[in-house]
Amino acid sequence: MLKPLGDRVILQAQEEETTVGGIVLASNAQEKPQTAKVVAVGDGRVLDNGEKVAPSVKEGETVLLDKYSGTEVKYEGASYLVVHEKDLVAIVD
Amino acid sequence: MLKPLGDRVILQAQEEETTVGGIVLASNAQEKPQTAKVVAVGDGRVLDNGEKVAPSVKEGETVLLDKYSGTEVKYEGASYLVVHEKDLVAIVD
Amino acid sequence: MLKPLGDRVILQAQEEETTVGGIVLASNAQEKPQTAKVVAVGDGRVLDNGEKVAPSVKEGETVLLDKYSGTEVKYEGASYLVVHEKDLVAIVD
Amino acid sequence: MLKPLGDRVILQAQEEETTVGGIVLASNAQEKPQTAKVVAVGDGRVLDNGEKVAPSVKEGETVLLDKYSGTEVKYEGASYLVVHEKDLVAIVD
Amino acid sequence: MLKPLGDRVILQAQEEETTVGGIVLASNAQEKPQTAKVVAVGDGRVLDNGEKVAPSVKEGETVLLDKYSGTEVKYEGASYLVVHEKDLVAIVD
Amino acid sequence: MLKPLGDRVILQAQEEETTVGGIVLASNAQEKPQTAKVVAVGDGRVLDNGEKVAPSVKEGETVLLDKYSGTEVKYEGASYLVVHEKDLVAIVD
Amino acid sequence: MLKPLGDRVILQAQEEETTVGGIVLASNAQEKPQTAKVVAVGDGRVLDNGEKVAPSVKEGETVLLDKYSGTEVKYEGASYLVVHEKDLVAIVD
Repeated sequence: MLKPLGDRVILQAQEEETTVGGIVLASNAQEKPQTAKVVAVGDGRVLDNGEKVAPSVKEGETVLLDKYSGTEVKYEGASYLVVHEKDLVAIVD
Repeated sequence: MLKPLGDRVILQAQEEETTVGGIVLASNAQEKPQTAKVVAVGDGRVLDNGEKVAPSVKEGETVLLDKYSGTEVKYEGASYLVVHEKDLVAIVD
Repeated sequence: MLKPLGDRVILQAQEEETTVGGIVLASNAQEKPQTAKVVAVGDGRVLDNGEKVAPSVKEGETVLLDKYSGTEVKYEGASYLVVHEKDLVAIVD
Repeated sequence: MLKPLGDRVILQAQEEETTVGGIVLASNAQEKPQTAKVVAVGDGRVLDNGEKVAPSVKEGETVLLDKYSGTEVKYEGASYLVVHEKDLVAIVD
Repeated sequence: MLKPLGDRVILQAQEEETTVGGIVLASNAQEKPQTAKVVAVGDGRVLDNGEKVAPSVKEGETVLLDKYSGTEVKYEGASYLVVHEKDLVAIVD
Repeated sequence: MLKPLGDRVILQAQEEETTVGGIVLASNAQEKPQTAKVVAVGDGRVLDNGEKVAPSVKEGETVLLDKYSGTEVKYEGASYLVVHEKDLVAIVD
Repeated sequence: MLKPLGDRVILQAQEEETTVGGIVLASNAQEKPQTAKVVAVGDGRVLDNGEKVAPSVKEGETVLLDKYSGTEVKYEGASYLVVHEKDLVAIVD
């Protein structure tokens, strides 16, 4: 298991399938999906007064992220995206 | 639904129509509209003392924004602009 | 109406006319006027301790500004200059 | 009158004349004078705790300034130099 | 012994062996392992209020790190990687 | 007299003479002396909490300074070096 | 004597000799030693709240330092390396 440090959030890209008339189409490469699922969340960043601020997202939530943020890491064959919480744009309900 | 994180604000470009003698003219491409409608507002940024500062704009308000700020995101077919609150210039009453 | 956000100030360029022997001369293009009239003032910036600091200029005042500061915005046909308060050099009494 | 904003100080270049055997010589262009007279002083900068720190120089004092600091502004025909207080090097007694 | 200073963490690269049908394969050079073992941990960084924040990792833990972070140091023939705590991505349980 | 502002220190280059067998040699131009004498000291910098921190050097002390720091100023024919206190490396006892 | 200012530490490069079969070999130029001996330590840096934080190293200790940090200074014929405490990587026990 990966336990992210600080204000980091570990994400897993979501397979985005589009169904047209029952035919499942893979997502268009040019229109890279911007959503991902939160797999693990760090304890948060430490403020200058020593307080820790817990991230605003929770495991299992789907988030929208900026196209160019994050670092890809590989762990046990799977590939994940690690981002700092501030690079998450929105929660998708 | 998109719930913006931190001090982010989600905007939707406003269709700007100009009517001249009853004829509706599309807005001039060279003079890109600088106003947009606030669609969703984050909880605000966290100060160094741990306090959260709510953004100064509200859902439904029309805002004036800097020409080059923000990131375009696509969600359910529609396209939105996500900006940090500090990149909003003014509220248009 | 435009309500500037944060520590922003909205300015309107002043027509600077020079009269020589009764003849009104337009201001010299090379010697661009550096003064403008304050049209609207934001609520001010938020300090790290959560306090809000109101800008030091008021609507109606004439200010001297740095030559290269500010962003031009268009609103209802008129053109304004939006600057952060820190880019205003002096109040002209 | 110009009332500088923030930690700004308005200076007026001093005519530096050198007398050699009774003949007044203009200051050498290559050895640009680095002193100026304080014409007006702002209220000072606001600290992160909300306190205002008054500048350490007063109207009428002569100051030594860094060769490349400041911005020239024109006001009522005269030309002034506006600098942030931190760019003043020393007071000349 | 090396006692890291500040928020530094000393790591030792882990030998990553892959066994395929009983044959031990060296890790692929192109897929550089991103995990390392924590060998020593500093006392942590000092906050602006004078408090010291102990790092979140402990000696003996395995951590995931960003591909390009850290500085290699040599000590008594062995080679170590020294990173600032903020460059550690996650703890691997 | 020059009264330095803020955390500035005014230095005067020291003539460094080397005596070899009674013969006084001028210091080697390639090995520029790195020591100077403190001529005047400012009141110090203002911390974010409003406190003023007096510089750690005193008039008359000899200091070691970084080769490339400081700005040369001319005053009454003499030439001085003005540095910020943080650019002084050590006091030479 | 040199008394370092602020959070500076003065180091002296250690002669690193390698003995192979009784023959003392000079250290390899390509593998520049990364350890040095602490010769003098400053009083430490001043925090934003006015507190002074004493450096974590003491005179006489051997430290490991980053390859490219520090500035060389010459004093009384000997050459020293002056580094800010934050550029020291570890204490070598």
